[in-house]
Amino acid sequence: MVRLAAPMITTPSDQQDAAARRFAFAAADRDAVYRAIHRRRDVRLFRDEPVDDELLARVLTAGHHAPSVGFMQPWSFLVIRSAETRARIKELYLRERQAAACFFDEPRRSQYLSLKLEGICEAPVNVCVTCDPTRAGTQVLGRNSQPETDVYSTCLAVENIWLAARAEGLGVGWVSILKTGEVRDILGIPPHVVPVAYLCIGWPVDLPPRPMLQDAGWRDRVPLRDVLRGEHYGIDGAALDAAELDARRVSADHPAMPEGLSAAR
Amino acid sequence: MVRLAAPMITTPSDQQDAAARRFAFAAADRDAVYRAIHRRRDVRLFRDEPVDDELLARVLTAGHHAPSVGFMQPWSFLVIRSAETRARIKELYLRERQAAACFFDEPRRSQYLSLKLEGICEAPVNVCVTCDPTRAGTQVLGRNSQPETDVYSTCLAVENIWLAARAEGLGVGWVSILKTGEVRDILGIPPHVVPVAYLCIGWPVDLPPRPMLQDAGWRDRVPLRDVLRGEHYGIDGAALDAAELDARRVSADHPAMPEGLSAAR
Repeated sequence: MVRLAAPMITTPSDQQDAAARRFAFAAADRDAVYRAIHRRRDVRLFRDEPVDDELLARVLTAGHHAPSVGFMQPWSFLVIRSAETRARIKELYLRERQAAACFFDEPRRSQYLSLKLEGICEAPVNVCVTCDPTRAGTQVLGRNSQPETDVYSTCLAVENIWLAARAEGLGVGWVSILKTGEVRDILGIPPHVVPVAYLCIGWPVDLPPRPMLQDAGWRDRVPLRDVLRGEHYGIDGAALDAAELDARRVSADHPAMPEGLSAAR
Repeated sequence: MVRLAAPMITTPSDQQDAAARRFAFAAADRDAVYRAIHRRRDVRLFRDEPVDDELLARVLTAGHHAPSVGFMQPWSFLVIRSAETRARIKELYLRERQAAACFFDEPRRSQYLSLKLEGICEAPVNVCVTCDPTRAGTQVLGRNSQPETDVYSTCLAVENIWLAARAEGLGVGWVSILKTGEVRDILGIPPHVVPVAYLCIGWPVDLPPRPMLQDAGWRDRVPLRDVLRGEHYGIDGAALDAAELDARRVSADHPAMPEGLSAAR
């Protein structure tokens, strides 16, 4: 990925390189995938235009094609359009938000209470993504050592939904300020099924370049170097971080991606 | 999303529609995102060409730009290239695989043992994705009602890595047949940090159109209709499923996407 111009003479090494990379997307297509990733936001302000079923089905199908442990596909997608149901979820959110505020000291508490953290009633559709640990029986290939991988798989489906929605121009917001027991009661979810994510989906009023919590000064983006580790957790990832800085230099031509790495090249 | 040709006369409703959809990607870019999603596979057979640091940094930066509860960014990425470390992880895998086989009856047991489920030593790089629940202090915005959302966020980072890798032509395989305690010991991960995913990354020998477990007859793709629910868990998602079938008809022009919905239109 270092070579920017095609070499004039192909060597056996070049040929090997090309063979290895034969599944790579064309540059424009790869950039589109990075754009979905880097320009995805948690959306809480929605326009009132509806989201039609065909579009929603396309986005949920993207979720259904997530990886899953033992190919168990443990997720279900509850599609909630009823204003009454959404109002009940909103009421639950409001209580949880007040309860959570008790754990912040001022001035953090007031800031927390001033933030718009959901669009439950404004978004035309809400989707609750659940995980049924019994979907593929009791013995699931790959789940024996880490039972929680069924829920992990369900989270991967959520990210697929989020990125497909971004490409479609839809906004998604994840509301985690809800207790799962109450969500189960309102939506009739059986006790053994885990409500993993409650999503608000609709047409966004805006998709700002940076996360709202970053713009609000709630918390900064952690530098990449701080999350990179070497062979061992105690070893920092300095070498890789230097590579990231090189890549960032290349991406200076992409002012549309101000943060970190964009679709470099 | 139903209109395939531009209308000759724009009405106020069309204008509203266009305004709502102004963040949508161009068709080719949207299709690229769907292609990454639908053509992603769990890869266990790798070529021996190396993966350079700049490319790996670009892929891990995609992970770092995942959504996270309270913008806590709880993940770390351990980059493991040492053959010795990978051999220790492989040894752990082999024991776990034998143990897991005890829970399957024949002929399932023999089939399980015949499947290639990892490429730990063949892949040039392994990445362990961890979650540090203390990354943003004890009180995290949005985590009060669902403490597990930090691990959920880490899973979203895994899917970003997987999809960015797919666009780059790289293969990723998630090895879940490992106990987290032993992974912690080998990689020096502190007791409070959760090893969420152990990934093998490299240039794939192949990226087949369907998941290996599906092709091997281990388990079928669940029909979309079976994972769709209405307002309530007990209500099926028949209406949406009909929309999916419509979309599938549109996508019949895309034979490259044989399963379910592709980038329709």
